[in-house]
Amino acid sequence: MSLIVVGTMAFDDIETPFGKSDRIIGGAATYIAWSASNFTRPIKQVSVVGGDFPKKEMTALEERGVSMEGVQVKENEKSFFWAGKYHMDMNTRDTLDTQLNVLADFNPVVPESYQDCEFLMLGNLVPAVQLSVIQQLKTRPKLVVMDTMNFWMEVALDDLKKVLKQVDVLMVNDSEARELSNEYSLVKAARKIMNMGPNYLVIKKGEHGALLFHGDQVFFAPALPLEDVFDPTGAGDTFAGGFIGHIARTKDISFENMKTAIIIGSAMASFCVEKFGTERLREITKEDIDKRLAQFQELVNFDIELV
Amino acid sequence: MSLIVVGTMAFDDIETPFGKSDRIIGGAATYIAWSASNFTRPIKQVSVVGGDFPKKEMTALEERGVSMEGVQVKENEKSFFWAGKYHMDMNTRDTLDTQLNVLADFNPVVPESYQDCEFLMLGNLVPAVQLSVIQQLKTRPKLVVMDTMNFWMEVALDDLKKVLKQVDVLMVNDSEARELSNEYSLVKAARKIMNMGPNYLVIKKGEHGALLFHGDQVFFAPALPLEDVFDPTGAGDTFAGGFIGHIARTKDISFENMKTAIIIGSAMASFCVEKFGTERLREITKEDIDKRLAQFQELVNFDIELV
Repeated sequence: MSLIVVGTMAFDDIETPFGKSDRIIGGAATYIAWSASNFTRPIKQVSVVGGDFPKKEMTALEERGVSMEGVQVKENEKSFFWAGKYHMDMNTRDTLDTQLNVLADFNPVVPESYQDCEFLMLGNLVPAVQLSVIQQLKTRPKLVVMDTMNFWMEVALDDLKKVLKQVDVLMVNDSEARELSNEYSLVKAARKIMNMGPNYLVIKKGEHGALLFHGDQVFFAPALPLEDVFDPTGAGDTFAGGFIGHIARTKDISFENMKTAIIIGSAMASFCVEKFGTERLREITKEDIDKRLAQFQELVNFDIELV
Repeated sequence: MSLIVVGTMAFDDIETPFGKSDRIIGGAATYIAWSASNFTRPIKQVSVVGGDFPKKEMTALEERGVSMEGVQVKENEKSFFWAGKYHMDMNTRDTLDTQLNVLADFNPVVPESYQDCEFLMLGNLVPAVQLSVIQQLKTRPKLVVMDTMNFWMEVALDDLKKVLKQVDVLMVNDSEARELSNEYSLVKAARKIMNMGPNYLVIKKGEHGALLFHGDQVFFAPALPLEDVFDPTGAGDTFAGGFIGHIARTKDISFENMKTAIIIGSAMASFCVEKFGTERLREITKEDIDKRLAQFQELVNFDIELV
């Protein structure tokens, strides 16, 4: 009756054309949980952190209905760390530093209390870890959604392909879709990727929106045009959190409902980029979300009388 | 009671990753007229060609209700010629050759029979020529739409700014909007550009769709995800033709109707890129257009119940 979220909880150093963060809280599962908890609770987190990860960050998520039972704390080790610098277009970035730390030998353990969850969100992580979580579940969830990145296509493609056969929805960005399929056209890429396992494919295009593919059907959700994109870190995870949060809330896994889910994901992502890290996600209210969803309706709804 | 279209009628040599055209018919006003004539007739063309421009091309347009009275034929000169090569992403291209020929000293003359037109579409052309056409009209049209390009921002910015003060709708692509405004954020760019004259701004983003700005309002039309973009030449002009064609047909210049107009422009552009040059535009029927517009509805329409 709930949602399992798997992914990193970590520290990030971020540099954008607008400023530089200190070492701040990040990680795919962190963003997903902050985003999804606006729509569904409880959320069952699976992750690993070091002794340096602030207890108050775990408490803050617990207060939003996110269980930490599946989050391993390795007191004598350090949390995963990523440092990156964004270019002016905010769609491209350089990784300045990656320290795996606790992630290097992470063996996830799914607690007994997490069994029978209906929805599983596999945040971007080592494919073997994603697969291990799927295999530990005694009942297959109603919907398994997976995020991944180009890095795993380069260093763990075989494992990645194994996970792909087990998931319903894959989320990647446009360059990752091209890399995974070896096709430039996103329509052709989508067809090839759906042949690898997932019945649904979401291709995220950053400021250019997101596409949802299923069979021959396609749906497009725009990104909200913003004055400034302050920090894109976590936008994809926040998108995933909004998507799976809406699906888990409604328990409706139809293509029609997934359309709504990617609009909600896009709305959540539009908040994320307004401030550094998770800062904006911690502030927003239901009213903020409703207002933004109304903006998305304004942005794309049109009347047409065929000529 | 009709539409004036101003722009080039020309020859193009086009190279794309999918092939190479011979010297084929092109020019902004050619594409605009082929596109707009699906929605409104008569169309009053203002252009200039050399003796080398095929008479049958003029006749083909006349048969679609496009008047050639305002098209000067300079028998002893050559038509405008452009050669370009597209990169794999189809959003960037290199100009290989530009021969102004008849365009070098083009003084447009608006025929008496063109007076009292309600709508004016200024295709991409020397800003001074665009301005001259506006000044020759005894009654200001109900709506003046202008397309332009980065080249004029670099060699004729003062003239361009004069035209901007006279138009209602400006159409540019995203990099041109950034160049003209000196702002990276398209939201900020739009605000600055609308302060230069036009009350409406359309920013075309190629495969990433188009944005329509008016005051604080914004509307987004996606591009149809296509298997292959075969040749993007003329897509922007075809978009403009669909836009102004719909406006001229409905005689409704409200923001709401402009939303529909940019969807129709996007649908027309999606045909244009399917074959070289104007080839696809010559084939399509009303049924093809209606079917594609229905695809656009499928692509973006969603139901949302605010949570």
